[in-house]
Amino acid sequence: MPETMKSFVIKTVGATEVVEKPIPDPGPEEAIVRTTAALICTSDVHTVKGALPVPDGRTLGHESVGVIHKLGSAVTGFEEGQRVVVCAVTPCYRCSACQRGFTSQCGGALGGYKYTVQMDGNMAEYFVVPAAAANLTPIPEAISDEQAAYCCDMLTTGFMGVEHCYLQFGETVAIFAQGPVGLSATIGAQLMGAGRIIAVESRPERQALAKRFGATDIVDFSKGNPVEQIMDLTGGEGVDAAIEAFGFPQTFEDCLRVTKAGGRVSNIGYHGENPAPLQLPLDAFGLGMNDKAVHTGLCPGGSERMKRLLRLLESGRIDPTPMTTHTFGFDRISEAFEMMTTKADGIVKPLITFP
Amino acid sequence: MPETMKSFVIKTVGATEVVEKPIPDPGPEEAIVRTTAALICTSDVHTVKGALPVPDGRTLGHESVGVIHKLGSAVTGFEEGQRVVVCAVTPCYRCSACQRGFTSQCGGALGGYKYTVQMDGNMAEYFVVPAAAANLTPIPEAISDEQAAYCCDMLTTGFMGVEHCYLQFGETVAIFAQGPVGLSATIGAQLMGAGRIIAVESRPERQALAKRFGATDIVDFSKGNPVEQIMDLTGGEGVDAAIEAFGFPQTFEDCLRVTKAGGRVSNIGYHGENPAPLQLPLDAFGLGMNDKAVHTGLCPGGSERMKRLLRLLESGRIDPTPMTTHTFGFDRISEAFEMMTTKADGIVKPLITFP
Amino acid sequence: MPETMKSFVIKTVGATEVVEKPIPDPGPEEAIVRTTAALICTSDVHTVKGALPVPDGRTLGHESVGVIHKLGSAVTGFEEGQRVVVCAVTPCYRCSACQRGFTSQCGGALGGYKYTVQMDGNMAEYFVVPAAAANLTPIPEAISDEQAAYCCDMLTTGFMGVEHCYLQFGETVAIFAQGPVGLSATIGAQLMGAGRIIAVESRPERQALAKRFGATDIVDFSKGNPVEQIMDLTGGEGVDAAIEAFGFPQTFEDCLRVTKAGGRVSNIGYHGENPAPLQLPLDAFGLGMNDKAVHTGLCPGGSERMKRLLRLLESGRIDPTPMTTHTFGFDRISEAFEMMTTKADGIVKPLITFP
Amino acid sequence: MPETMKSFVIKTVGATEVVEKPIPDPGPEEAIVRTTAALICTSDVHTVKGALPVPDGRTLGHESVGVIHKLGSAVTGFEEGQRVVVCAVTPCYRCSACQRGFTSQCGGALGGYKYTVQMDGNMAEYFVVPAAAANLTPIPEAISDEQAAYCCDMLTTGFMGVEHCYLQFGETVAIFAQGPVGLSATIGAQLMGAGRIIAVESRPERQALAKRFGATDIVDFSKGNPVEQIMDLTGGEGVDAAIEAFGFPQTFEDCLRVTKAGGRVSNIGYHGENPAPLQLPLDAFGLGMNDKAVHTGLCPGGSERMKRLLRLLESGRIDPTPMTTHTFGFDRISEAFEMMTTKADGIVKPLITFP
Repeated sequence: MPETMKSFVIKTVGATEVVEKPIPDPGPEEAIVRTTAALICTSDVHTVKGALPVPDGRTLGHESVGVIHKLGSAVTGFEEGQRVVVCAVTPCYRCSACQRGFTSQCGGALGGYKYTVQMDGNMAEYFVVPAAAANLTPIPEAISDEQAAYCCDMLTTGFMGVEHCYLQFGETVAIFAQGPVGLSATIGAQLMGAGRIIAVESRPERQALAKRFGATDIVDFSKGNPVEQIMDLTGGEGVDAAIEAFGFPQTFEDCLRVTKAGGRVSNIGYHGENPAPLQLPLDAFGLGMNDKAVHTGLCPGGSERMKRLLRLLESGRIDPTPMTTHTFGFDRISEAFEMMTTKADGIVKPLITFP
Repeated sequence: MPETMKSFVIKTVGATEVVEKPIPDPGPEEAIVRTTAALICTSDVHTVKGALPVPDGRTLGHESVGVIHKLGSAVTGFEEGQRVVVCAVTPCYRCSACQRGFTSQCGGALGGYKYTVQMDGNMAEYFVVPAAAANLTPIPEAISDEQAAYCCDMLTTGFMGVEHCYLQFGETVAIFAQGPVGLSATIGAQLMGAGRIIAVESRPERQALAKRFGATDIVDFSKGNPVEQIMDLTGGEGVDAAIEAFGFPQTFEDCLRVTKAGGRVSNIGYHGENPAPLQLPLDAFGLGMNDKAVHTGLCPGGSERMKRLLRLLESGRIDPTPMTTHTFGFDRISEAFEMMTTKADGIVKPLITFP
Repeated sequence: MPETMKSFVIKTVGATEVVEKPIPDPGPEEAIVRTTAALICTSDVHTVKGALPVPDGRTLGHESVGVIHKLGSAVTGFEEGQRVVVCAVTPCYRCSACQRGFTSQCGGALGGYKYTVQMDGNMAEYFVVPAAAANLTPIPEAISDEQAAYCCDMLTTGFMGVEHCYLQFGETVAIFAQGPVGLSATIGAQLMGAGRIIAVESRPERQALAKRFGATDIVDFSKGNPVEQIMDLTGGEGVDAAIEAFGFPQTFEDCLRVTKAGGRVSNIGYHGENPAPLQLPLDAFGLGMNDKAVHTGLCPGGSERMKRLLRLLESGRIDPTPMTTHTFGFDRISEAFEMMTTKADGIVKPLITFP
Repeated sequence: MPETMKSFVIKTVGATEVVEKPIPDPGPEEAIVRTTAALICTSDVHTVKGALPVPDGRTLGHESVGVIHKLGSAVTGFEEGQRVVVCAVTPCYRCSACQRGFTSQCGGALGGYKYTVQMDGNMAEYFVVPAAAANLTPIPEAISDEQAAYCCDMLTTGFMGVEHCYLQFGETVAIFAQGPVGLSATIGAQLMGAGRIIAVESRPERQALAKRFGATDIVDFSKGNPVEQIMDLTGGEGVDAAIEAFGFPQTFEDCLRVTKAGGRVSNIGYHGENPAPLQLPLDAFGLGMNDKAVHTGLCPGGSERMKRLLRLLESGRIDPTPMTTHTFGFDRISEAFEMMTTKADGIVKPLITFP
């Protein structure tokens, strides 16, 4: 009889619960990790609301770090007991999409995002790591579990948003919304040489975080049209690139409107909650001829990328932990998830600790 | 009293005429070219219909080649009498957009397209060349005026459409519509290593040209949904890239639908005739997360690019002249323009010869 | 007792022989292929001469195609009996170098090249395919074994040489030496839009193949300094890119000399036979400031790349088989290898057929 | 009779002097700037020693800022009296090399570097700006002349060195030598997202500046082989990219040796003082097959790039002025130049002020 573990699952659309499940065994290329810390992601809130079709009883979560509990027979180069971080996206690295460089589209569109969608997530005491050789990343001693957990989704997604801006040093970027992913994009824009970072956000505590992370200008959309405000700030020129970190059709359109000819729009917002198609108005789109580009993507994974993020944390060049506004033990996961749903108490990112 | 020349102008929205204008004098950095051959572009048909706001009496045309008639005082390295081609887009090469690499956006969005929009076009016996040092390109002896005229807009635009596909050799591309620009994209896709070129077109004569220029598959949209046909042809996988060469919202959307995750949509269609915004349906757009990209642009100019096109014509690697379905003397320009408007007699591209 | 197979091995430095070895069994992620056709590579000639340190008795060969004989327990998506091509380089796709995109450097410098160096090669009746999920590529019915065998090394290496030229369409490229890899680069340069292809070669039969594959100019280095000849051909301007496909210090230097400022040198020559360091003379290198770049690489593998090559063969856009000057049954492998060593009878590439 | 100005010139190889020259008049596309501040560059020391062939009496200097004194007849968009910075490299933006994107190779190899080489430099009370429309950049009020002067050569060159490393965020870079250009590369590597910056330098005051500018590790080559030290620091793995900022054959070779497979070597060192060719040893170069690349370049100019540098200074993201170890009035230019030649008193960069 296998030992069991506690898992935080979707009971049915709109409801969650903690259940006991057997501790999984690894396949030959897999590993089992014992969770030590995790973050709750707003995507899971969307999932519970029904945005993604997942079976009842599926474990939630995709931002967990821990300790290697068991290695599959074909996995070499790691040791049980090692502290590791695992990205929310865990590609196979061998299929057609992976070989083409689109590892987040492993096996098909968005297919690299396996936790919760294709298999149990990792808001549980133990979790499975597919293709462990490529998806396990040892955590340097100097890095805390909390810091490492920000690599799983927030930092890699936010930084991808900046990479898709194809910035030249000193260019100007606008980042729409400063939730955890937008704030991570702000950290990334500062890291990757932006000259001016215009953060669009109305909540004071998030504005303060944005400034702390490198925003040079704050645009409060509750105080006027953000497009006009950004055009004013840039002397009518517009920005070189804009990042959509909100997931709303008007915001996407605003991103297009604030970019100059030759500008780039980078989408990291999750548009699953709004069924309407995104729009490209012809004036902002230059009738399809103003050298603008739109890029999209999903949370890039892999141990090499995780290693680069960890190196930046280790050298102190970035520190996302000011985003952790709340901390809960895993026994209070339901309460934490409820807060993340209501966004009560100015919550940005709740850390979950495991015994 | 200056000598005069015949010019083909927009009389008012909906009407054209041939008028006499003074032969222009060059500014210090300009040149005057005596026209020897020209092509009529569908954009001019749009302009006469009122798509672009231009003053009455403005000369039309932007696909002309000729002989240097007079050089501005600061222009060196050329000689009067030299045969030259001049791109439809004539950037300054020194402004902010030009320095950033977006020469077609010279001085502002779409600002590199100066003929007809900002100054007289070149469907006239003589025409002005701005920033002549960068915009005059000598034509090698072996190249006919007709061949060179295809460099002005058709080839450079169609090839840009392919460049914005960022193709790996052997990849699959779908090209929607096989008008002159779409056919030029087909020539370019063949030239730049596509493994499979799916041309979407219903007119038999254009299908035949597409095949001649390298299309490996023809999809006739009059015989069924082109998206379904392309998905069938690719075993359900979709294409690596799609080129919109039609200028219609549904076509743009179809381009998005036929690309696989990680695919690129490259727009070269002119969307000025349909006021509705272009749409990105969330399923085809992967909720903004399927690593797709959209690129736009406008007819890249400059003598270096023209030289590279001429080299390809000279080595016989490309030959667009099968597109020339009709030839008229400049004295019959009104008749030719009328045919281009009605698309009578299977016209693809009419060549205008000058005495 | 396992069945045995015939293998062509290095007996000791300077000598080869055919021996019996057990037919291998696949590990969980491996496959066993029964060979149906193979090409002999000059690299193996170098290896037998002692250029690479390999143990006595190691099977030679890395350009083989065949039929899947047995699949490892973890390999899905393939069937026994399927015709497949396997690249000379068989990366794991999961290590650090692979994740960084340098799959030929799998596990360390040049580490993706496993056949003969790290394990038995595939000039044998059966051979092992590591990481089979990523390294097996089904061959379309219309493609012959001979055609497919050119994908293993010749085409992928030659095309990489062109990719590392970062060509704009219509640019000029010089390719030094027209052995099988140089000829493949010529095919690739034609495929990927070069405007002018200058092939440097002295042997008439290779000159003829170069022309057939798209070379626009032939420079015979036996009739004068090739640098001077190329500068003359380009009006003193030089080429945009040069490919070193010979593997000799002077040739590498010549590549640098014939490129214009901003030019690229792409190395695909194997420099293992000449111990002297390659040199960058300061005048040709612009004192380190003339915007030149040098790129290197090794035979990129993977089923996605093989699929793209096969698609080009299938559409008839490329056909390397005119390089096959000789054909031998596997029972005459020693004779074929000897001819490849002496380059007798104008041999370019010998095909080996299996019963 | 024209007014005269003081100019600091090369008298003959090995000697300098201050002479009176007429204040120049601008051509139609030029501007005249009255100098307010300048930096002395080690390149000028090399030039006086005879490294570049320049005529006796040629004015030295290429790192000057000032105030627009007079505009050419064709220059619009600027006003006399405006504070401006002018890059050391002043391309035409219209020739073949400029159109291909290699503006520093304007008109031919290294041809964008016009000051001193093709015309009088700008260590003088007034100086000419060619192609003023593209080469004049207004200085924001908040930026001092001293700060702006670092844009002319130091920052643009050092940052190009980093751009040619094609860094992914979090990667590791080694920078060989921490003179003013190497220190600028350190500033750039920190700005553009390097995870670890290993600065190779022996002088304590330069080591201190390197740390201040973002170096995470210092390697003192006077205390042991720098290659071994760097391999030790990286656990035997090597760095992703190395910048040669010294201009010495052994250093160039060391850069190649410390990079891992797939690594990039970026040269910004001036190799004009050492006639020997640079070398690529076959082991470090992977026999020409280890996916390494070498990039070179020269001080990129243009107002757009200058604007981006100024934006970074304005937002306080970078500040190179700690490099200014000494300040002299222009009347003491000879003394300052002598110190720069002998590198006395720990001099890094001397600022020259004008009355």
